[in-house]
Amino acid sequence: MATTDGDKELVQLLLTRWRNPETGLDLATEVVYDVFLSFPDSERPNSVVVVLENGTQPFISQQKEKNLTADQNDPAVVRPYAAYAPPGNPQGKLVYANQGKLSDYEELVQNGIELNGTIAITRYGGAGRSAKAINGAKFGVIGVVVYTDPADINDGIVSEEQTYPNSWYMPPSGVERGSYSDHFGDLLTPYYAAKDFTYRIPEDNITGIPLIPTQPIGFEDAKILICNVQVNVYNHRRIEKSSNVLGLIRGSVEPDRYVLYGNHRDSWVHGAIDPSSGTAAMLEITRVLGKMLKEGKWRPRRSIIFGSWGAEEFGLIGSTEYTEEFFSKLQQRSVAYINVDIAVFANATLSVSGTPPAQSVVFKATKQVRTPDNSNSVYENWKLYFNRNSSIYGVIPRLGSLGAGSDYAPFIHYLGITSMDISYTYDRSKTSARIYPAYHTAFDTFDYADRFIDPGFTSHQTVARTAGNILMRLADTLILPLNVTDYGEMLEQMYKAADHEDIVADLRNHNISLAPLQAAIAQFKSAAAGLDQRIASLQEEESPSPLHVRMVNDQLMLLERAFLNPRAFPDEYYYSHIIMASRSSSIATFPGLANAYSSAKVSGNWEKVRQHLTIVIQAIENAASILEPVAQ
Amino acid sequence: MATTDGDKELVQLLLTRWRNPETGLDLATEVVYDVFLSFPDSERPNSVVVVLENGTQPFISQQKEKNLTADQNDPAVVRPYAAYAPPGNPQGKLVYANQGKLSDYEELVQNGIELNGTIAITRYGGAGRSAKAINGAKFGVIGVVVYTDPADINDGIVSEEQTYPNSWYMPPSGVERGSYSDHFGDLLTPYYAAKDFTYRIPEDNITGIPLIPTQPIGFEDAKILICNVQVNVYNHRRIEKSSNVLGLIRGSVEPDRYVLYGNHRDSWVHGAIDPSSGTAAMLEITRVLGKMLKEGKWRPRRSIIFGSWGAEEFGLIGSTEYTEEFFSKLQQRSVAYINVDIAVFANATLSVSGTPPAQSVVFKATKQVRTPDNSNSVYENWKLYFNRNSSIYGVIPRLGSLGAGSDYAPFIHYLGITSMDISYTYDRSKTSARIYPAYHTAFDTFDYADRFIDPGFTSHQTVARTAGNILMRLADTLILPLNVTDYGEMLEQMYKAADHEDIVADLRNHNISLAPLQAAIAQFKSAAAGLDQRIASLQEEESPSPLHVRMVNDQLMLLERAFLNPRAFPDEYYYSHIIMASRSSSIATFPGLANAYSSAKVSGNWEKVRQHLTIVIQAIENAASILEPVAQ
Repeated sequence: MATTDGDKELVQLLLTRWRNPETGLDLATEVVYDVFLSFPDSERPNSVVVVLENGTQPFISQQKEKNLTADQNDPAVVRPYAAYAPPGNPQGKLVYANQGKLSDYEELVQNGIELNGTIAITRYGGAGRSAKAINGAKFGVIGVVVYTDPADINDGIVSEEQTYPNSWYMPPSGVERGSYSDHFGDLLTPYYAAKDFTYRIPEDNITGIPLIPTQPIGFEDAKILICNVQVNVYNHRRIEKSSNVLGLIRGSVEPDRYVLYGNHRDSWVHGAIDPSSGTAAMLEITRVLGKMLKEGKWRPRRSIIFGSWGAEEFGLIGSTEYTEEFFSKLQQRSVAYINVDIAVFANATLSVSGTPPAQSVVFKATKQVRTPDNSNSVYENWKLYFNRNSSIYGVIPRLGSLGAGSDYAPFIHYLGITSMDISYTYDRSKTSARIYPAYHTAFDTFDYADRFIDPGFTSHQTVARTAGNILMRLADTLILPLNVTDYGEMLEQMYKAADHEDIVADLRNHNISLAPLQAAIAQFKSAAAGLDQRIASLQEEESPSPLHVRMVNDQLMLLERAFLNPRAFPDEYYYSHIIMASRSSSIATFPGLANAYSSAKVSGNWEKVRQHLTIVIQAIENAASILEPVAQ
Repeated sequence: MATTDGDKELVQLLLTRWRNPETGLDLATEVVYDVFLSFPDSERPNSVVVVLENGTQPFISQQKEKNLTADQNDPAVVRPYAAYAPPGNPQGKLVYANQGKLSDYEELVQNGIELNGTIAITRYGGAGRSAKAINGAKFGVIGVVVYTDPADINDGIVSEEQTYPNSWYMPPSGVERGSYSDHFGDLLTPYYAAKDFTYRIPEDNITGIPLIPTQPIGFEDAKILICNVQVNVYNHRRIEKSSNVLGLIRGSVEPDRYVLYGNHRDSWVHGAIDPSSGTAAMLEITRVLGKMLKEGKWRPRRSIIFGSWGAEEFGLIGSTEYTEEFFSKLQQRSVAYINVDIAVFANATLSVSGTPPAQSVVFKATKQVRTPDNSNSVYENWKLYFNRNSSIYGVIPRLGSLGAGSDYAPFIHYLGITSMDISYTYDRSKTSARIYPAYHTAFDTFDYADRFIDPGFTSHQTVARTAGNILMRLADTLILPLNVTDYGEMLEQMYKAADHEDIVADLRNHNISLAPLQAAIAQFKSAAAGLDQRIASLQEEESPSPLHVRMVNDQLMLLERAFLNPRAFPDEYYYSHIIMASRSSSIATFPGLANAYSSAKVSGNWEKVRQHLTIVIQAIENAASILEPVAQ
């Protein structure tokens, strides 16, 4: 867990490995930040208590998970809590509020249920963790209990006999811990690296965390809660020192171009899967590369930077502080960021999220790597599970889109660096589990990983081979393996989602035309096609000029930066990527435009739609101009 | 004047020159924007009228300048007006309000003078044009008259015999026109290029322009104004098409690196000096370079882009729209921006404003160019007039700092591109004129330039030679002639201004230490010195690797970008350069810090001081990390 002795030991382990004279890197450094965290009180455990009218307490929630495999008894196991939830002891009638979405609370009110002074019990999923409490407080709710529903995590299975340690399903006493914060990065130092001298906003100015006591529990406890309960929360918030560990391999030809690869180091409890499956993959990659390096057999064309991020579980803190501290350098020089956090959710198929320029390099790599059972290429197997019909390529594997679920978020949303997130995952026809059931509980152990997630650790190997292959291609290929034409396909898709009969009619009624947007996308596609042609000619040259190659590579590398506009979403921390920002509207078009349109339908504010249309067009035109011949 | 027939003729002239087969450039393009301008009514002239109690009008201000050299009778001469001032006919007692600063109005109130319902008469200078009206309106003033005081512009000279056409001084009927807008760029499209489809903010949301009728007059009229006056303003605001003309010379080795050179094309009236002295220098430079190019004798290493900007007089509109439209490309690829607007104010000495990395290349060029009378180098002569004692170099010429007075503003403040502004100017011991006296009047004519500003046009030649020399050095030198060590000296100076006994005591009382700032500056200086050493070794190599040179050049070119923080000054359009932003505080340290400190002394808001200290430190650390070895 972040900043504990275990964390410090891992920092030393990474430093030792990365400084190993036979298998280490060129350089390994520890960088420390002072970050704002939240912990349960060691003396007074949090609880949810049933209180009768006469004051007696016939039930108190379990203070920790049952000791099923001895791992749960480890003194380092943190008791279940909602990080950043404030302390307090509110007492009131318990109301079931489904997933704690705004619409869930509204439905209760519409059905005549008085929410003022109640404790809401909600299940995980549907809304962010903190949203459940933030939404509830708006309706007068004074405390929130969050439980994991077996229907969401266990395919409905609830008995001790059928759950871990007898299967991968969550035992009845399992509790999902988590950060109850909407934002990422250190909450007291948005946009600034959290050093000792850094300005910190007043704690009262923090937004996006619960204002009412909140506590997660297991389904064993959840099912017997009725009537009047009291939520007892004794969490503390305090500033702690948290480390990133950085490892470096210097590039031989272009040391000033960085390929970034990272994962967080901290877990909630043992974290065998989250994050150590990813850390294991990273350490194996660095060992292999380090060995080739130290033996003098290989040095990449570009520099590679490995990051072991601290305090991710509290809100991607280490990676965010890193992007804040080295903003300019990273934005000017980074080729791409590869994230492997939970390397293996399950053994069925690869899963990749990323922006369009990542697609081609991921495809190339996955065609070279075999599935864990060696029955197929990772690419072909992946295509069976996740696919789409591309207007350019026909049926191909489908890349997901990057939200803010792991450390790639600051790299793509704040810095505009082409990013990807890689893992092995489920066959969705076999389970509907929201996530692997031991997630964030005391049951995410080596035993669990070994027996249920990845027996033989063959999927771990597959992910490491895939990510390593991508990494080496990005670091070594003369012309960067980023395909910008693929961005054109996404822009076209987003345009089509907006170019719907009903939407167009609404826009026309307010004198708004999509024609300039269509023209900008056409300009982009034509610029991308032109660059592709010039790249093809360049690749035919016997000894292309180094500066000519560099020029083209800069166009490929810096394209994604043109989609950033730090003034586009003034109310959202960090988000400034016009194409990838978060979207609440159900219309699958450009997020700012979609959100503005959906709210204009209610509020009548069509000015905002006009404004976001201009923001999108200007970003696409800027992106096109990056790809066009540089002197025209 | 912007968007008139004369402007269109000049666009054609530039296109013809830059497309000339013998002396033209590689490419010349016209780019058109739809920009928001303000003009007087052609039917109803603006006026300031004395109104007696019986309603008679014994005096009406002159509607245009006296016809002294026939140039004033040209039908294209726009009548004097305050661009963007609203129409209206307010009438009230006239109050003399000095320069129309906030403190001027406050002093009147403190002396018991009722301002409500009055017309204020103010002189040019001391406060921005629009500020005079914006400030007055806060005190109930209903109209503003602005005149040019002979003490400020004419060294006190007022008679017709001693003024133009008999000397360079402003005739009694001369009126300074001007844009009464605080911001730069098209007022309806901040941050977006003003194209036909672009979102425009509602006109009522424009800030920084007068809300009350305002009119400039000459001192001949000003001196007889007493008692009750009426200000009659009939200005219109409307959107007009305004052009930039862009000229390009393709770079041979690094076509994707841009050296930018520009000046505006529009004037208020004839504009022989403002801006045509600069345009003449630009056309001579492009003619000479174009000739070498077409004869196959020369092609620069890097690309050169020339810009003839439209509608500068209304608020740097053409240049700002250009930086908005091509934001990403310009920010990624621009080496520097050279501005020559008013090339010659007078014949005494060179004057240069710019950021520190420009200093060394300007020095090198000016040592090679002779003064107009061929008596000295421009450098040595310059040093006689403007100098300072540098901690590194001893006594050297002094570069001024860049405000927002001409088209360099969006390049430095919005894009963070190293910029410089070059002209020949006065011997300050011979005149205290605020600016050359015919500025923005109908007397800024060829005759005026020929007889009083630069007889023989030798200073024009000197400026063109100097600017051309700088331009060629930036475009051709293998290692960019930008010295980053010189930024260290400026940071040190700014630190010293903050490290004053009284300030340090105030800060200590609020638990704020400057030590981390000092450490960051030390880090910067050490990084700069290290880079200088690596450059020196590189220059000794016989055939340095092209990519090694490019790496170092990217560090030099992109340093200035690290000082940008688009979130540092949320209330100020475009300003985002931590070192160069505008400062209202009298303490000559980092502007955000200085302003926050000065207001904390009044408001007690020391949080803002803490915040800006962090912003400055983080920017300097980022800048240092740009200069450090790229893989460490």
